[in-house]
Amino acid sequence: MSQPSVGMIGLAVMGSNLARNIESRGFPVAVYNRTGEVTKEFMTKFGTRDGKTAGFVASYTMEDFVKSMKAPRQIFIMVKAGAGTDAVIDQIAPLLDKGDIVIDGGNAYFKDTVRRENKLKAMGLNFLGIGISGGEEGALKGPSLMPGGPRDAWKIVAPLLEKIAAQADGPCTNYVGPDGAGHFVKMVHNGIEYGDMQLIAEAYDILRNVVGCQPEELASIFSAWNNGVLSSYLIEITAKIFAKKDPEGAGFLVDKILDKAGQKGTGTWTAQVALDLGISIPTISAAVDARTLSSMKDERVKASGQFAGPSVEDFTGNREEFITAVHDALYASKIMSYAQGMNLIAAASKQWNWDLKLHEIAALWKGGCIIRAKFLDEIRRAFTSNPAPSNLLLDSFMKAEVTRCVPNLRKVVGTAVGRGVPVLGFAASLAYFDSYRTATLPQNLTQAQRDFFGAHTYERTDKTGSFHTEWE
Amino acid sequence: MSQPSVGMIGLAVMGSNLARNIESRGFPVAVYNRTGEVTKEFMTKFGTRDGKTAGFVASYTMEDFVKSMKAPRQIFIMVKAGAGTDAVIDQIAPLLDKGDIVIDGGNAYFKDTVRRENKLKAMGLNFLGIGISGGEEGALKGPSLMPGGPRDAWKIVAPLLEKIAAQADGPCTNYVGPDGAGHFVKMVHNGIEYGDMQLIAEAYDILRNVVGCQPEELASIFSAWNNGVLSSYLIEITAKIFAKKDPEGAGFLVDKILDKAGQKGTGTWTAQVALDLGISIPTISAAVDARTLSSMKDERVKASGQFAGPSVEDFTGNREEFITAVHDALYASKIMSYAQGMNLIAAASKQWNWDLKLHEIAALWKGGCIIRAKFLDEIRRAFTSNPAPSNLLLDSFMKAEVTRCVPNLRKVVGTAVGRGVPVLGFAASLAYFDSYRTATLPQNLTQAQRDFFGAHTYERTDKTGSFHTEWE
Repeated sequence: MSQPSVGMIGLAVMGSNLARNIESRGFPVAVYNRTGEVTKEFMTKFGTRDGKTAGFVASYTMEDFVKSMKAPRQIFIMVKAGAGTDAVIDQIAPLLDKGDIVIDGGNAYFKDTVRRENKLKAMGLNFLGIGISGGEEGALKGPSLMPGGPRDAWKIVAPLLEKIAAQADGPCTNYVGPDGAGHFVKMVHNGIEYGDMQLIAEAYDILRNVVGCQPEELASIFSAWNNGVLSSYLIEITAKIFAKKDPEGAGFLVDKILDKAGQKGTGTWTAQVALDLGISIPTISAAVDARTLSSMKDERVKASGQFAGPSVEDFTGNREEFITAVHDALYASKIMSYAQGMNLIAAASKQWNWDLKLHEIAALWKGGCIIRAKFLDEIRRAFTSNPAPSNLLLDSFMKAEVTRCVPNLRKVVGTAVGRGVPVLGFAASLAYFDSYRTATLPQNLTQAQRDFFGAHTYERTDKTGSFHTEWE
Repeated sequence: MSQPSVGMIGLAVMGSNLARNIESRGFPVAVYNRTGEVTKEFMTKFGTRDGKTAGFVASYTMEDFVKSMKAPRQIFIMVKAGAGTDAVIDQIAPLLDKGDIVIDGGNAYFKDTVRRENKLKAMGLNFLGIGISGGEEGALKGPSLMPGGPRDAWKIVAPLLEKIAAQADGPCTNYVGPDGAGHFVKMVHNGIEYGDMQLIAEAYDILRNVVGCQPEELASIFSAWNNGVLSSYLIEITAKIFAKKDPEGAGFLVDKILDKAGQKGTGTWTAQVALDLGISIPTISAAVDARTLSSMKDERVKASGQFAGPSVEDFTGNREEFITAVHDALYASKIMSYAQGMNLIAAASKQWNWDLKLHEIAALWKGGCIIRAKFLDEIRRAFTSNPAPSNLLLDSFMKAEVTRCVPNLRKVVGTAVGRGVPVLGFAASLAYFDSYRTATLPQNLTQAQRDFFGAHTYERTDKTGSFHTEWE
C-alpha cells in the first residue's frame, strides 16, 4: 500500500462509510478518531478484506495521523458540526504543511465555513466546505458532493470526489463556488428536502382522511406515482415504508410510529437565511413549522379534546379522480417549493458574488442525495436556457405543468380546508403561486396604513415619486 | 427652569416628538443632535411657547450636552438603530458619571441591547432598552413604552415613563424584564402588527374580489367592524383610509397607491427568532412573506400575463353573510396570530429567564401602540388566570370565539382558494389551528422516512424507547 494522502477524522457512521467508499476506489486512507476504541473497532471490521490488508492506516494520536500521510494532504473532518469541528481544526492546523487541504464534510453553517476558511488561509492552509448528502448509504456507495472553497484546492481533490460521488449522467459532484457556497447549497438542499417530505406527508394525510386509504393501498399509490413525474427517491421509499409490516406485531409499521418529527436545524437555517436575503420560501418555511407543531404531541392531544373538527360527510366524489388530484397537488406544490429554493440560491449567489450555476446544482442533486428525482432533469434543462428564467415557474415546461396541475391543487386545498385536514405546505404553495401571478395585490392598503401611522410614504400607480398624506 | 436631568440625543421626528412630550409633562429636557442645524431648527420651532421660554436646553457638542444636565442623567438615544446607536454610546459614555442612565428608544435588535448593557455596566453606567410604539403621534401624545434592563435603573425613570406614556386603564408602560426584554417585546409587537396588517389586507382583497366591494362600502364595513370585537386602531384607520379621496384627482386614494409593501426588519427578526426558539408563528411569517412577494411588482405583473387565474362565476351567495364570514375569518386568524406571538414571548422568557408577565404585556399594548385594541383586554384577562393557559386558544373565552368563528374562516379560505385570491395569512392561520387541534398528524411518515434514509430512529405509539428499522 502506498502512503495515503487522504485522511479521515471521525469514524462514526458517516465518516466510517465515507472512508470505506474512498478506500474502495483505490485510495489508501489514514483514519483517526478522538476515542481510540472507535478506531480499533473500525480496523477490526474493515482493516482486512478477504484475508488481505485493506487500504487503511490507523493512528491514535493526531500527530501520528498527520505523519502517516504524504503532502498535499486531503483531510476530511466528519465530526458533529459546530464546536467539535473548530476543536479538530485547532488541533490539526499547526501540524500540517502549507498547501494541505482540510475538508469539512459535516452539515456546517455556511458562515462558519467562511470563517474557518479565512482562519486556515492565514496559516497557508486550504479549506473546503463540502456538503454531503445521501445519508449513511450514500456515504458508502456514492453521495452527492457539493464542494465550496478555493477553486485551486478543489482541483486537487476533484479526481477523488468524482470517483466517490454518486454517478448519474456523470458524477454528482462539481465545483459549486467559493467561500461557504458548498455548505450553503447543501443547506438549501435540506430545506427543499424538508419541503418534499412535508408535501408527501400532507398527501398521505389527505388520502387517509378524505378517501380512507390504508397503508397497503398507499404503498401501491406511491409506487405508481414513482413511475411518473414524481419519480424520486423520497416517493420510492415512501411506497416501501407503507408496505412495511410491523416487526413487533400485527399491522403496518407506519401506523405504530409516533407523529413527532425531529429536526436538526438545516431547515431552520434555510428559512432564516431566506428572511435575511428577502426571498420568500413559504413552502419550505411551512415544512419547518409543521415539524415544530408535530413535535408538540402532548399539547395537540390535549387541544384535540377541546376543539372538534368540522363535521364532514363521507366522500362521495370519484375516488380515482381525487387520488389523481392529490398527485397533481403534490406535484404543483413541489414545483413551487423548488422555485423558491432555486430563487434562494440565486439570491445568495448575487449577494456574495458566488457565480453559482443553477443548472449544475440541479445536476449534482441528480444522484446520491435525498432529493434525487427525475424532475431535476427538467430543472437542469430550464436553467441551461440563456437567459435563464427569473423564476423556475416561467420556464415553458414548468409553466405548462403548473397550469395543468394547479386546478387540482385548488381542489385538494379546498377539500382539506373544509374537512379540517391541516395543509400548511399545500396552502402555502398555492398562496405563493397566487401571490406571484397576481398583478395587483392588496398591499396598497398596507402602504396606506404605514403612511398613516408612521409617515413611511407610498408610491402611486399613476406617477413616480414618494408621497405622504395627512390622513386625518 | 431647573437644570434638566433628562436628555434627548437625536431630533428627527421621533426624538423631537418624544422630547416635546417629556417637556410638556413638566420635565426640562436637554437636547442634542449630531447636525447642529437640526437642533437650531428644533429650538426655533419649540424653544418658546406662547412667548415664554419652553423647557429645552440646547447644546451643540456632546460635552456641553452632558454638562447641561444634572446627575443621575436620563439620556434618551433616538437615532437610527444599528451602528449609529453604538457610535453615540461610544461618544457619550466616557463623559458620564457613574449611575447615569442611557436609554435606547430605537428599534434595536434585542441581542444588541444585551451587548450594550453589558458594555455600559462595566463602566458603572446603566442602560435601558425601551421599545417605543405609536409612531410620530404616539411619541408626541403618549406612546406605549416597553422598558427592559436593570430594575433599579428602571425605577429611577419610571415616574417619567408613566407620565409620558399613553393612558388606558393606567399608563401603558411597566417594567418588562431584564436584558433586552423590552426590545424583544417591542419586536414581537411589530411581528403581531405585521400579522394584523396582512390579515386586514387579505380581508380587503377578498371583499373586493369576491363580492366587489369598493372603497366607499369598505369604509363603512370597517367602520362597523370597529364597533365590535375587532375594535382597534388598525381597523379604525383602515376605515379612514378607504374613505379618503385622492387629493390628486378623481376617485379614492387607496386605489392609486402602489401595492408594494415596504418593511424595516422587525417582522423578519420576529420570524427568525421564532425559528431559533422552535416556536411556530406561521401567521406572522406569512405576513413577512406577503410583503416580500408584494414588493416584486414587476415580476408579478409579468407572471400575471403568463398564468391566468381560475375562471370563476359571479358570487351568488348571500352578500351580507359573506361579509360577516370575512369578519369572522379575520377575527379567528387574529386570535391565532396573537396566540403565536404570546407563545413566542413565553418561550423567550423561559429561554433567558426573563420572568415576563404576559398579562402585563397585553396591558401595556392597550394604548399608544399600533396594535392597541379592545381585544387585548381579553388577552390580559386570559393570562391573569392561574395557571395561565399554555396557549391562548385554550382560554375559555378564546376557545368559544374560535369555535364560533373558525367555520367562517374555513368558508372564506375555501372561497379564496377556489377563486385564486392569495391568502397566505388566513390559510396559515387555519393550518396552524388544524395542526394544533389534531391529535394525530402525518409526521409518523416523516419519522419513518428519516429513519429510512438517515437512521434517525423513531418513537412508537405503543411503547417507549427509540427504534430503528432496516427498511429494505
